[in-house]
Amino acid sequence: MIHAYAAKTIGAALEQFEYDPGVLKDQEVEINVEYCGLCHSDLSMLKNDWGISRYPFVPGHEVVGTIAAVGDRVTTLKVGQRVGLGWSSHSCMHCEYCMSGDHNLCLTLEQTIIGRYGGFADKVRAHEEWVIPLPEAVDPAKVGPLFCGGVTVFNPIVQFDVKPTDRVGVIGIGGLGHMALRFLKAWGCDVTAFSTNPNKESEARELGANHFVNSRDGKAIESVTNSFDLILSTVNADLDWATYINALRPKGRLHFVGVVPNPIQAYAFPLIAGQKSISGSPTGSPITIAKMLDFAARHGIEPVTETFDFSQVNEAIAHLEAGKARYRIVLKH
Amino acid sequence: MIHAYAAKTIGAALEQFEYDPGVLKDQEVEINVEYCGLCHSDLSMLKNDWGISRYPFVPGHEVVGTIAAVGDRVTTLKVGQRVGLGWSSHSCMHCEYCMSGDHNLCLTLEQTIIGRYGGFADKVRAHEEWVIPLPEAVDPAKVGPLFCGGVTVFNPIVQFDVKPTDRVGVIGIGGLGHMALRFLKAWGCDVTAFSTNPNKESEARELGANHFVNSRDGKAIESVTNSFDLILSTVNADLDWATYINALRPKGRLHFVGVVPNPIQAYAFPLIAGQKSISGSPTGSPITIAKMLDFAARHGIEPVTETFDFSQVNEAIAHLEAGKARYRIVLKH
Repeated sequence: MIHAYAAKTIGAALEQFEYDPGVLKDQEVEINVEYCGLCHSDLSMLKNDWGISRYPFVPGHEVVGTIAAVGDRVTTLKVGQRVGLGWSSHSCMHCEYCMSGDHNLCLTLEQTIIGRYGGFADKVRAHEEWVIPLPEAVDPAKVGPLFCGGVTVFNPIVQFDVKPTDRVGVIGIGGLGHMALRFLKAWGCDVTAFSTNPNKESEARELGANHFVNSRDGKAIESVTNSFDLILSTVNADLDWATYINALRPKGRLHFVGVVPNPIQAYAFPLIAGQKSISGSPTGSPITIAKMLDFAARHGIEPVTETFDFSQVNEAIAHLEAGKARYRIVLKH
Repeated sequence: MIHAYAAKTIGAALEQFEYDPGVLKDQEVEINVEYCGLCHSDLSMLKNDWGISRYPFVPGHEVVGTIAAVGDRVTTLKVGQRVGLGWSSHSCMHCEYCMSGDHNLCLTLEQTIIGRYGGFADKVRAHEEWVIPLPEAVDPAKVGPLFCGGVTVFNPIVQFDVKPTDRVGVIGIGGLGHMALRFLKAWGCDVTAFSTNPNKESEARELGANHFVNSRDGKAIESVTNSFDLILSTVNADLDWATYINALRPKGRLHFVGVVPNPIQAYAFPLIAGQKSISGSPTGSPITIAKMLDFAARHGIEPVTETFDFSQVNEAIAHLEAGKARYRIVLKH
């Protein structure tokens, strides 16, 4: 039996919950969960914001632990090895996207907490290829959040070939944005933090920002017109995107990793005149997660975390909901 | 003196007009105009749609002719050589965009018919680097429209590294779209024409389309969901862009070369889930124009044109305004 924390109904407090996972499949591994990050997506799923949740619902998709057992055909992982598991847990491995290294775009991709029980538990299972070995040099107590939030902001750096000579803006200095600042600083870029909260300036600079701009101050944003090769939006609120499009340099890209509620609106003319793009991307593929971990280990990059015991999971959720997390919460057994 | 056709006031009929161009500048050349395409942008400027027109206004930015004279420092062109000139006529040649081969994105780019007199004339001038030699194998009476409309649709193929294995949709089978079909067929792509006019199907197939879809038929577009690496919109009308975003495959791009009146609206979620992009681009740089001409010569690609004498310029404009041009109009002396 697996011992988990589950919400029995929409938005309910988590309580202890046992389930029988059945026989371990050929290509699956079972992980002994040591740590698991708490992500905003766990909250969205808990409240059925996307209309796809099933109850009992077990959150948790930023897992760090050790391999407890391996299926009969598993060849890449061994019992006892320390690993991590993120947002996605299974893909078909055969379609053109999986065969191109874009497993995260597989049309039959399965997620760790959608239609299955997640990592707020003593054990969790996933396809071996989605379970990534941890480099020795990273702290297992800290890096859980890299597996969802981290790779979500690292992925566009890789996908769009961001260069160390690029000027990059990050909108929203929270759970995702603070990791983006650290990655981009280590990547060698000129980094600007956009935040509604002027009190975050000194911390943003410590995290890697060279510049700081109030993200709701139209005049401040106008002062950086024609400045950015990439602007990465991590927020879930509507902003005046036209101003940000003007802040892009020719060939610049306004890229979304946070879901904003209303449609992004863009006049064709500024896109055409400046050869500009608007885009989005999900979390990364297994190979991108592995590259991120290697890069993080080499540069000493880890998320800023607060730690709660799994027994305090409901307090941790309340802390995140109140907007108080600085910047990511990790649960531990 | 240069003898031109000008509108004296907003939207007026063109009439004969003489002006003194002054001394030829060091790096400019003067072209004896043989042919000049008539482009929708000429109409927009004639009517001051963009609020930037000055009168007398001389249209014409798809020029083919021979070099009449060269400035003292011109080294790349010789008197008598046959050349073409498009939308842009001058750029600074020194900024990072010019120095990167992206002269079309120069922040001080000057256009052939903005703030100067265009190619509906016996002569017109431009910076030598924006005046591109014509390959022997192309018909000077036909290729004028390649210099604006042609390179506008050829440019994104180059900029976004479209591959012969890609599946590409073209929205709008008119002045721009029909050239896009020819280029993409020769590029080796699987090409779908989207048009509101079902009568254009057979012609679209002759021009290079492998498939034909009614661009306003939501069900027909739904039937091609998840199909395209690139969709190139050449129209100036608002469509249901969400349907076209769904028609993109993962990593697909909805690209605009036509200015649509209202903001393009896109929900973040489908962009994020499928790593999709929305973008735009202007006409191309000199090197892209030269590559296009070489490619067109090698593959026998030319626009479908109707020819009018310069003396019939007002009839030609009326024909274009009535939506009757099939597909581009060329004026000749």
